[in-house]
Amino acid sequence: MNFCSQCGQPVNLKIPEGDNRERHVCGHCETIHYQNPRIIAGCIPVAGDQVLLCRRAIEPRHGLWTLPAGFMENGETALEGALRECEEEANARIDNPILSGVFDIPHINQVYMFYRGPISPNSQSEADFSPGIESLEVELFRESEVPWDQLAFPVMELMLHHHFQDSKSNLTEVRTGTITRPWKSLRS
Amino acid sequence: MNFCSQCGQPVNLKIPEGDNRERHVCGHCETIHYQNPRIIAGCIPVAGDQVLLCRRAIEPRHGLWTLPAGFMENGETALEGALRECEEEANARIDNPILSGVFDIPHINQVYMFYRGPISPNSQSEADFSPGIESLEVELFRESEVPWDQLAFPVMELMLHHHFQDSKSNLTEVRTGTITRPWKSLRS
Repeated sequence: MNFCSQCGQPVNLKIPEGDNRERHVCGHCETIHYQNPRIIAGCIPVAGDQVLLCRRAIEPRHGLWTLPAGFMENGETALEGALRECEEEANARIDNPILSGVFDIPHINQVYMFYRGPISPNSQSEADFSPGIESLEVELFRESEVPWDQLAFPVMELMLHHHFQDSKSNLTEVRTGTITRPWKSLRS
Repeated sequence: MNFCSQCGQPVNLKIPEGDNRERHVCGHCETIHYQNPRIIAGCIPVAGDQVLLCRRAIEPRHGLWTLPAGFMENGETALEGALRECEEEANARIDNPILSGVFDIPHINQVYMFYRGPISPNSQSEADFSPGIESLEVELFRESEVPWDQLAFPVMELMLHHHFQDSKSNLTEVRTGTITRPWKSLRS
């Protein structure tokens, strides 16, 4: 950040009065520009013992697999964001979604929130999905079939790991955790 | 937002290519300025059947009561933010904190995350707390003693309501919900 988004004049890094950390502060109109972590809302679309993954058609991590997820937008709830991303990336809807995971990634200022639920069926009572514009393909995977070494982001490995563990033991608690750098794979 | 924080030139509201909603986009350097919800991290500091509340020494809602909470900062986890706020506002530490509530407030682009735990004791084995600089006073309340009509924010009523309900039934599930406007008090 170089300039004030209010008045267009240069900003300086300084600790505002009553604060205890550096902020970008406008030298002209004195607006304080706070920067805060962002939420990424995602889904775990389930069909029996399978989970729906999307192969990314966009950067970063083009060609790698992910749960449908994306930045939460202003004006929506985290759940609404998660369901929107699931529709956009996999043309899939989720029934009775419940919060399943909250994961911090402090080194990139992100918090992931995941909601799990069965994929809504089509008129043939089959899980209904197809690639959205941001996906090369979308596919159902059992735990043993997941492309574990082709996942786009460590947080996807962590969420999927917990999901398969918990669905075997019928656990429904919300999983929490922190992704640290460097990430040590759970599968090694 | 009027000006680009990168180059200082005017921004325009438009829908970027490949996007589906209006963003502030720089007319000069073409930087897209996304705006996203912010996380407010808070604690439910517990002592037996009592909860610690802080009376606000700052605006907004000066003089009203709140659970210790504040904006999550870059570089920290939500839990770290919650514990930091609890220290800043109530000079209190929490033992074994667990995620207890995730509440959306879409009309003001906020998500609250609350962590519950017993207040760490002092050397006399009593819950250790005192007013921080942002608090006029801090005090323990049983459910019947909570100043329900003097709470600073609707989300505090919602979290406290769930907390007292769940502690009676020994529930530990994470509560979720959405604050809508106008807020209809749970106690009327």
